[in-house]
Amino acid sequence: MKRSSRRAFIGKGEAAAGAVLTATPGIIMTPAAERPPIIHHVFFWLKNPTSTADRDSLVAGLKTLAGIPLIKELYVGVLADTEKRDVVDASWQVSELMFFTDLSGQANYQQHPLHLEFVKNCSHLWARVVVYDAMNLFNRTS
Amino acid sequence: MKRSSRRAFIGKGEAAAGAVLTATPGIIMTPAAERPPIIHHVFFWLKNPTSTADRDSLVAGLKTLAGIPLIKELYVGVLADTEKRDVVDASWQVSELMFFTDLSGQANYQQHPLHLEFVKNCSHLWARVVVYDAMNLFNRTS
Repeated sequence: MKRSSRRAFIGKGEAAAGAVLTATPGIIMTPAAERPPIIHHVFFWLKNPTSTADRDSLVAGLKTLAGIPLIKELYVGVLADTEKRDVVDASWQVSELMFFTDLSGQANYQQHPLHLEFVKNCSHLWARVVVYDAMNLFNRTS
Repeated sequence: MKRSSRRAFIGKGEAAAGAVLTATPGIIMTPAAERPPIIHHVFFWLKNPTSTADRDSLVAGLKTLAGIPLIKELYVGVLADTEKRDVVDASWQVSELMFFTDLSGQANYQQHPLHLEFVKNCSHLWARVVVYDAMNLFNRTS
């Protein structure tokens, strides 16, 4: 997509962003248009943190979640080799990042057969899981 | 973009994914094609967690980072109102999610004048920051 048409697309999206909703008391939030606004980011600490076999098994398991249509975008990653500053948590091994259209999509995903199958097949691999669920108020994607 | 052309685009991307690199000892990683593979996700705990004014100030500050070209995608969000399961960390207030093309882009972003200005203007607002840096091995974006 050329830069000009991308900008036109974004402009159209902003103009169409009519919906205003309240998710947390005390703040009026307008979800960013044209991108799925709900982010679900999960970090996994392996029982065997140095096992590349276990890491690869978990990555393979997470890839099967791609078959769930409720997930609008899926990213499966590992710890990046960035500078180890005090604020950086570099103690985990595998991550999944998902975008959902709305809160009900995220809730229904939890009960999807492919997700339950993933948990059944892979939960023995991890010692700890931490989930962050965010609602985007703003995005710039180009 | 129609579904058919989207698929064609993804197919082309996969075919072009020739580069293989090692980021962590013991694993050969092929970055996912056609999407910026480095994810930088930051969570902020406000000094005044219930202050919507402070939250809005931090969100406004984070939006200024959109002026940094090194950031390929930027999402600014707040805690989503998902189910409060044991694994969900719902103690933070504001988040930023960024995609970078490579590790050097993420490193150089740290020193960008707009980022330094943001830290100068907004760091009084937060009590705690946690950063997760991931490298994507896989993505599905449609």
